[in-house]
Amino acid sequence: MTAPLRIGIAGLGTVGAGVVKIVAKHHNLLAHRAGRPIAITAVSARSRGKDRGVDLSGFAWEDDPVALARRDDVDVFVELMGGEAGPALAATEAAIAAGKDVVTANKAMLAHHGHRLAEAAEAAGAVIRFEAAVAGGIPVVKALTEGLAGNEIRRVMGVMNGTCNYILTRMETAGLPYEEVFAEADALGYLEADPQLDVGGIDAGHKLALLAAIAFGTRVSFDAVEIEGIGRIGIEDIRQAADMGYRIKLLGVAQMTGRGLEQRMSPCLVPADSPLGQLQGGTNMVVIEGDSVGQVVLRGAGAGQGPTASAVMADVIDLARGFRVSTFGRPAATLAEPVPARAAAPAPYYLRMTLVDKPGALAKVAAALGEAGVSIDRMRQYGHADAPAAPVLIVTHKTTRDALDHALRAFGATGVVIGEPVAIRIEAV
Amino acid sequence: MTAPLRIGIAGLGTVGAGVVKIVAKHHNLLAHRAGRPIAITAVSARSRGKDRGVDLSGFAWEDDPVALARRDDVDVFVELMGGEAGPALAATEAAIAAGKDVVTANKAMLAHHGHRLAEAAEAAGAVIRFEAAVAGGIPVVKALTEGLAGNEIRRVMGVMNGTCNYILTRMETAGLPYEEVFAEADALGYLEADPQLDVGGIDAGHKLALLAAIAFGTRVSFDAVEIEGIGRIGIEDIRQAADMGYRIKLLGVAQMTGRGLEQRMSPCLVPADSPLGQLQGGTNMVVIEGDSVGQVVLRGAGAGQGPTASAVMADVIDLARGFRVSTFGRPAATLAEPVPARAAAPAPYYLRMTLVDKPGALAKVAAALGEAGVSIDRMRQYGHADAPAAPVLIVTHKTTRDALDHALRAFGATGVVIGEPVAIRIEAV
Repeated sequence: MTAPLRIGIAGLGTVGAGVVKIVAKHHNLLAHRAGRPIAITAVSARSRGKDRGVDLSGFAWEDDPVALARRDDVDVFVELMGGEAGPALAATEAAIAAGKDVVTANKAMLAHHGHRLAEAAEAAGAVIRFEAAVAGGIPVVKALTEGLAGNEIRRVMGVMNGTCNYILTRMETAGLPYEEVFAEADALGYLEADPQLDVGGIDAGHKLALLAAIAFGTRVSFDAVEIEGIGRIGIEDIRQAADMGYRIKLLGVAQMTGRGLEQRMSPCLVPADSPLGQLQGGTNMVVIEGDSVGQVVLRGAGAGQGPTASAVMADVIDLARGFRVSTFGRPAATLAEPVPARAAAPAPYYLRMTLVDKPGALAKVAAALGEAGVSIDRMRQYGHADAPAAPVLIVTHKTTRDALDHALRAFGATGVVIGEPVAIRIEAV
Repeated sequence: MTAPLRIGIAGLGTVGAGVVKIVAKHHNLLAHRAGRPIAITAVSARSRGKDRGVDLSGFAWEDDPVALARRDDVDVFVELMGGEAGPALAATEAAIAAGKDVVTANKAMLAHHGHRLAEAAEAAGAVIRFEAAVAGGIPVVKALTEGLAGNEIRRVMGVMNGTCNYILTRMETAGLPYEEVFAEADALGYLEADPQLDVGGIDAGHKLALLAAIAFGTRVSFDAVEIEGIGRIGIEDIRQAADMGYRIKLLGVAQMTGRGLEQRMSPCLVPADSPLGQLQGGTNMVVIEGDSVGQVVLRGAGAGQGPTASAVMADVIDLARGFRVSTFGRPAATLAEPVPARAAAPAPYYLRMTLVDKPGALAKVAAALGEAGVSIDRMRQYGHADAPAAPVLIVTHKTTRDALDHALRAFGATGVVIGEPVAIRIEAV
């Protein structure tokens, strides 16, 4: 058996401790599979004294992750600190500069600095792997980079934030309003310190940007992801969607269109009986469409100690086996700067709004839509007993987001629309 | 850019022609992803003149696949002829003997000769890859061998024969008997030349044996797979299962138990609202359960030109990238000879039988079950207006297959059971 692969772990939170557990528990199994032992030589974290439920006594300790990254007895730097920049970025850069391979779960760092890091890694002859950064334990980075590498990718979609899916599922099953379920999720510790990362769609947007780069051979372009969170989804939208045979999901969609690369992370209506529609609770799902393979669906736990550590270990084992592939599946120099295309592909939309209860109000809204070139598939005014305002539901035929926005802007001038309408894309999945 | 990876393709049926198409269509994309061009240098098939809808003029032709496998201008031998032995095996052995890597879609050959071929390949410094042999376009061999390599695998399950799933789905949706749907499938060309390979569960059994070897680090052991086809499933079983919230699937299950390795390919009842239960038509699904990752579900097209060629290309690209892993994910010498355990894990069973319509008949059946230690969860006698025979449905509590078989044998002595009862395991998925 050849020499051990020596890893240094920076960050001993849930995931870091999970990696320590797997290496301890499955030492022989990993050695057989990897063809060589995998050994943790050094670790780093903020607090040395904290009890993490794992035995760290056999590992060297570094207070500074940069020092860890530069250690001679570390072959692979495993970055599990998180954070877009700061120590995680500094230590990753130090590891690359020292010619070391990097395994990271850090979607924010890669979404913002991934292209530059990929270039630096290639220049240094190092490899960056990030299976754990996208959809937890689901081996989706590998599926896209390797398993479906013979395909021109048509579209990548995914429900990649378990917290949002938990909230939307719970709103539907318990019939509770957003605010109440949000408070529940917070109490359960499901939310990030900054909840906007979850419910605002940012965390899931980071993941989508990484998958899009691999899928379409483009530089990671997080700033070009159109992001909309789930905060405006009402229990009424969930009910109306269910009535029509749909469920509302925070869905990421990336596709290359004639106008450019479309990247969206936003609430969408999907058929309730589709795999995405059937996804309940905190589970993640990624759907990949390739020109030869058709549609491949991957489903599994998107977070948690075991699943995320499983993904980290897959990358470590690949490196132990000598697998070396460019960060985004092809040399960084061949990644094109994407032309962002805002919701280029036309789709039907669900609209919910409140109208003043006056004769002709509905006609004015219909006229505004017609003038914008948006045609109506079905329209429904419902449930108001002598109220001064009438809730109205409209499903449009396929339209572009531009035409729809044009109509939404024109609603203001009609004087009959109260407040802001809710507009949700209906995605064909 | 480095030298092209030169592949030779033996077998130009649906899948072989699909590979030729992908290489022609995506030459540049593949070169970027693989880090080097992929070039077909030579091909071989039974009939040289046949029009396959692809341009073969740029490739050398060999009548003999063994000669193709030995050519100096072939780096990777792509075996797409099929067949457990014969020319496919001879040519694969020749390629390995010449130190060449092999990519194959041949589940029958690997299920029967996989261990020996893996040993030979390792001795020769060659690699065998077989993503296309299991579940078509779904990258499941990669997910299990690489993506989940940090896990001790608990169970692998799958619906891996699209024809059987098509037949069972169509029986349910159209309310047609097995024989009629079988004839339909035959007319549509969905069946293998020997239909027992499909409906008898053999083809799916081959695939399960390959996944089990990777999952549990055991030598491929196809002979130890308990195989039962779908031929005895009646429309009545499908209806009764649906009534209870289940669907019947030809389900492969492999798990390591205290008594040994359990490998089954047989009809099972699964909850209708589970991912496996929701799988309709010809699609495949594989469920992998690992100690860290939990449950990962993969779904996609299990057959067809595009999907299967996509899987072949993934293996070719991996080899072009220099990825080298042992055939079953660890050195052949470390694969244990499995102890076969017949349906070791206890489960509830669905039983359907016909009883003579006499007082006490049901009591005799219940007594036989009780004596075998099988307890009854629910029992139902249904739908017979003055008929001389009464159909009876029983769902047992969890029991071993041995205890159940004991009871089934005792049914004969009761003198009240007409014909052979149908017994279908209810698998917790």
